[in-house]
Amino acid sequence: MNKERKQTNISELGEFGLIDRLTKAVTIKNESTVKGIGDDAAILDFKNKQVVVSSDLLTEGIHFNLMYVPLKHLGYKAVVVNLSDIYAMNAIPKQVTVSMAVSGKFSVEALEELYEGIHLACEQYNVDLVGGDTTSSLTGLTLSITAIGEAEKDDIVMRSGAKPNDILCVSGDLGGAYMGLQLLERENEVFKVNENMQPKMDGYDYILERQLKPEARGDIIAAFKRLGIKPTSMIDISDGLSSEIMHLCKNSGVGCSLFEDKVPMDYQTKQMAEELNINPLVAALNGGEDYELLFTLPLDDYDKIKNDPDFTVIGHMTEAGEGVNLQTTGGSSIPLEAQGWNHGK
Amino acid sequence: MNKERKQTNISELGEFGLIDRLTKAVTIKNESTVKGIGDDAAILDFKNKQVVVSSDLLTEGIHFNLMYVPLKHLGYKAVVVNLSDIYAMNAIPKQVTVSMAVSGKFSVEALEELYEGIHLACEQYNVDLVGGDTTSSLTGLTLSITAIGEAEKDDIVMRSGAKPNDILCVSGDLGGAYMGLQLLERENEVFKVNENMQPKMDGYDYILERQLKPEARGDIIAAFKRLGIKPTSMIDISDGLSSEIMHLCKNSGVGCSLFEDKVPMDYQTKQMAEELNINPLVAALNGGEDYELLFTLPLDDYDKIKNDPDFTVIGHMTEAGEGVNLQTTGGSSIPLEAQGWNHGK
Repeated sequence: MNKERKQTNISELGEFGLIDRLTKAVTIKNESTVKGIGDDAAILDFKNKQVVVSSDLLTEGIHFNLMYVPLKHLGYKAVVVNLSDIYAMNAIPKQVTVSMAVSGKFSVEALEELYEGIHLACEQYNVDLVGGDTTSSLTGLTLSITAIGEAEKDDIVMRSGAKPNDILCVSGDLGGAYMGLQLLERENEVFKVNENMQPKMDGYDYILERQLKPEARGDIIAAFKRLGIKPTSMIDISDGLSSEIMHLCKNSGVGCSLFEDKVPMDYQTKQMAEELNINPLVAALNGGEDYELLFTLPLDDYDKIKNDPDFTVIGHMTEAGEGVNLQTTGGSSIPLEAQGWNHGK
Repeated sequence: MNKERKQTNISELGEFGLIDRLTKAVTIKNESTVKGIGDDAAILDFKNKQVVVSSDLLTEGIHFNLMYVPLKHLGYKAVVVNLSDIYAMNAIPKQVTVSMAVSGKFSVEALEELYEGIHLACEQYNVDLVGGDTTSSLTGLTLSITAIGEAEKDDIVMRSGAKPNDILCVSGDLGGAYMGLQLLERENEVFKVNENMQPKMDGYDYILERQLKPEARGDIIAAFKRLGIKPTSMIDISDGLSSEIMHLCKNSGVGCSLFEDKVPMDYQTKQMAEELNINPLVAALNGGEDYELLFTLPLDDYDKIKNDPDFTVIGHMTEAGEGVNLQTTGGSSIPLEAQGWNHGK
């Protein structure tokens, strides 16, 4: 938070004054947005498209720690995380609503920083902020975002269409966001012990950015169009590769063989893992928050993607009876287990 | 909370197990719902209709007190409040997404009670629960609901169309929800002092229901259709009559004359106000949570509604320069002030 800026108590503006101030920069970018903020509801018109809708809730202390997450980054990430769900349907996000509950510890200027991030994400991804709710809470900050997107009916990709022998692909690389979080937590612990210690984060800009300012892969959806590809199933990686593979398999009624040595990881991810004595594969499988796209393609489409550095083939789908297995570099096959909320993450 | 029911810790089910259990009763009721819960996003198809979207966030300790609000009622009300926003656009709600953050103090059974209320509201208003997010929080319960509705383009009513000389009308009666809350708070205070005291709520079932189980006025939207009426402006009464009149006036660029003796109030509302030594008009003007519809009509439509007991004409719109005024029973005209969040409500 910028300490130089004047700090205004929210009660000086009131609810409507606050909303006006936070949303005055909003201009409508999409034809499907007929009416945005300022009435009981937003009005949207998608003509003959289908509409996709996704909601997420982020709470302080669980999904973010304001000790090391700047509010502007939080606002940006909160929007991006939802857009990622829309892209995971092979759809294009068009609108978001943002609701927030804030306690008295936040000033108007702090919320403006949060909204700077929200506006920046809307700008970056060409979506319109069309509504929401601003209210108070007894403790902390809660953000709730709903994203709305559109697609031609025939373009939409669900989790349920994977077939045995389809290849399993992922965009980008995995585990970085988790290792970035480990780094932030380590430095935060050091800071708590000695406030004069400078954080040691040199050379780890990539994994910090993966954690603090992730991007949603709209470019991959554009690449699918360009390459004439329609995945048979798709999901975004929010909980970790294991969990998402299990979702695809369960929803599609298939099994999967995942190859350990194919899982793409950045050099910094591996470096940080080594420094913290963590197996980097665990970060990729269970870390989550990578917001990459995991999808399946018919084997025939392999030639279309094999030379594209944005895609990595990491396995293939099998008959359901064969289960979901990790083929290790050591040559053994072990059942994959999804981790997530169950494990206190 | 039913103390007889087995209490299951949420961690026993995990996030996905919990969502499955809470949403297993969901069946799709609307043609516009192509795909509901279970993918990255819901898929909706509105053909040539316009889409309206509204979001609300409710936090424990601010919007509800679980000491006297049963979880089932809370779930019901959380949905209804959002549907009310959709009706206030003269549209028909079709889908909702429900996100919640819960702390460890809630059992699976408690959340099932909450969802019983959510499902009941969806059933009652014929809307589909199509998605959301379930996550943990450090303290308390936060609910975020997004409602989606549809309307023909020409049917949609915004806050901005009121003209001078339009009549100002309201459905139902006002102030009841606020007086119901006062009663609940009084009895809760008594209970805190002496747990053996039985709450004294006899004869106040109507205002308790107004507070605990409000309904959204879809019947009024149906009546508009039947009577061949399209309001020039409309809003729902969530913050109180004063605040909502100010919104209509500001958005429409008009003034208003409101007549004190026309404001509809139930006998129980007046009775409770007398018992607690509160001016019942204050409850109607500033109490909020009535979820009635406030709307303006051209004078020519007066004949269509004058005999309908669901509607009350409470004033008329004026030129903006005349301001927003309350005409008291004593014959004086005083400027109306909106109260809301600013006043620590």
